[in-house]
Amino acid sequence: MNQDLSRVTTVSAAMQQAALAYRAAGRKIGVVPTMGALHDGHLALIRRARELADVVVTTIFVNPLQFGKSEDLSRYPRNLDKDVQLATAAGSDLIFAPPENDVYPAGFSTHVEVEGVTEPLEGRSRPGHFRGVTTIVAKLLQIVQPHVAVFGQKDAQQVVVVKKMVRDLCFPVEIVIVPTVREPDGLALSSRNVYLSPSQRSEAPVLYQALQLGERLLRGGERSCDAVRRKMRDLITSRSSGEIDYVSIANGLNLQEATEADPGHPFLLSLAVRFGSTRLIDNIPVML
Amino acid sequence: MNQDLSRVTTVSAAMQQAALAYRAAGRKIGVVPTMGALHDGHLALIRRARELADVVVTTIFVNPLQFGKSEDLSRYPRNLDKDVQLATAAGSDLIFAPPENDVYPAGFSTHVEVEGVTEPLEGRSRPGHFRGVTTIVAKLLQIVQPHVAVFGQKDAQQVVVVKKMVRDLCFPVEIVIVPTVREPDGLALSSRNVYLSPSQRSEAPVLYQALQLGERLLRGGERSCDAVRRKMRDLITSRSSGEIDYVSIANGLNLQEATEADPGHPFLLSLAVRFGSTRLIDNIPVML
Repeated sequence: MNQDLSRVTTVSAAMQQAALAYRAAGRKIGVVPTMGALHDGHLALIRRARELADVVVTTIFVNPLQFGKSEDLSRYPRNLDKDVQLATAAGSDLIFAPPENDVYPAGFSTHVEVEGVTEPLEGRSRPGHFRGVTTIVAKLLQIVQPHVAVFGQKDAQQVVVVKKMVRDLCFPVEIVIVPTVREPDGLALSSRNVYLSPSQRSEAPVLYQALQLGERLLRGGERSCDAVRRKMRDLITSRSSGEIDYVSIANGLNLQEATEADPGHPFLLSLAVRFGSTRLIDNIPVML
Repeated sequence: MNQDLSRVTTVSAAMQQAALAYRAAGRKIGVVPTMGALHDGHLALIRRARELADVVVTTIFVNPLQFGKSEDLSRYPRNLDKDVQLATAAGSDLIFAPPENDVYPAGFSTHVEVEGVTEPLEGRSRPGHFRGVTTIVAKLLQIVQPHVAVFGQKDAQQVVVVKKMVRDLCFPVEIVIVPTVREPDGLALSSRNVYLSPSQRSEAPVLYQALQLGERLLRGGERSCDAVRRKMRDLITSRSSGEIDYVSIANGLNLQEATEADPGHPFLLSLAVRFGSTRLIDNIPVML
């Protein structure tokens, strides 16, 4: 038996009981919510949580609610044993890895929904996605009772949505964001990168290249967001076979598409590109 | 200055900080969520919370989200000073009475929604009502961090809906229900009873009489729920000027209308009747 599996809890009620006991004992709890298939990006989140909390809980749950019908739920990579080893080595004290029927028992019918910031970008391309995200995050926050929750900048809109939910409903938790971890060629780490064929993989750094181009243009004084988007799109189509879902330069607070890039405001440059059936996303937050 | 007002907190962040400090000190927190205009029914909830918890928090907030556009939000009775005195005398340690812009600041856009049990009965007559209820209760549970929350049986469907939300999202709180408190003539106490004219007030006990008739018929062996509903309706129309919104005999768990009253199952007899612009509700849970 893998010794590390003693660190795995699969029952919500047991996890919550342990969490409440840690709280009662004055221990600070940090949580890193994941869907498993852990890579160095996730491990950076766990290491950050390790710095911030006394007890680090990594949750591993491939949340069906946040997948669309035609999405990759069934083929999403799963490897609990390896995830437990990696998370533990990065500083996780406990793994909470519940089965689906524990999280969503028969008759489950409650959802948490954020309006507004969930509508553009990923929300437009993936209807219902953020309703699934906010429902599972709200539930995990109740089960794990964390003082701090660590998320990756890679899912930029998720960060905005989760922060909005936490603020609106007064969840007593601090949301901490860790920068995106990248391959040497710039490709953002993602559990979905394993789906890429060798030729797709060689083209995939074009996402980050387009984002860097956009940032360079804006920092160079280009004020027309349309012009910047157009040049980013041109770069992607000229250098890859990727099919653009969106290329966005948005207000960093409300995620509405920006027209003028006025200095002094936060912007989010983000994009989604398909390589065959694999959809990749990336982003750079830019303060001009 | 009223001495009791020192017990009133109006800022969510301050209330939550106090609640987390009570929790850290090992004190058991009980909450009684109300919309104010406290009557003996509310005071029974506060007294029950007093028995169950070390620190009793009464929340007073007339929640606009749970009122429909044509409902009585603007005329809903408000009297904070009197409420503070009554709640304190009944055993409340703290009153949390936030203004609307603290609970729903500009840009607030998060909701909690329960499907299924919210659809019949009050949900059908008051679209959006339970979405408002679950959103405010979820938020109050985060702010007050209670171990136990006390609700009245008077709002029977609210009880079912709140319990469902708490179970689905794993809120670490026990929901305790207190039986409906009634006037000597059987009328259930309600903050809305003050709207009744003297003649309407004299007719209003017909709600409870109809419920008692229904219970008597079922306990007497009548198995046809349709027959029972018909006799309850006949009683209301023959003895009052009230306009029936609904008369229901439902499965006590999922609130679906029942056909056969099979022994061994919980049923909820409930009704809503309008007297002029005043809408009254009442119910009796029956285990056959």
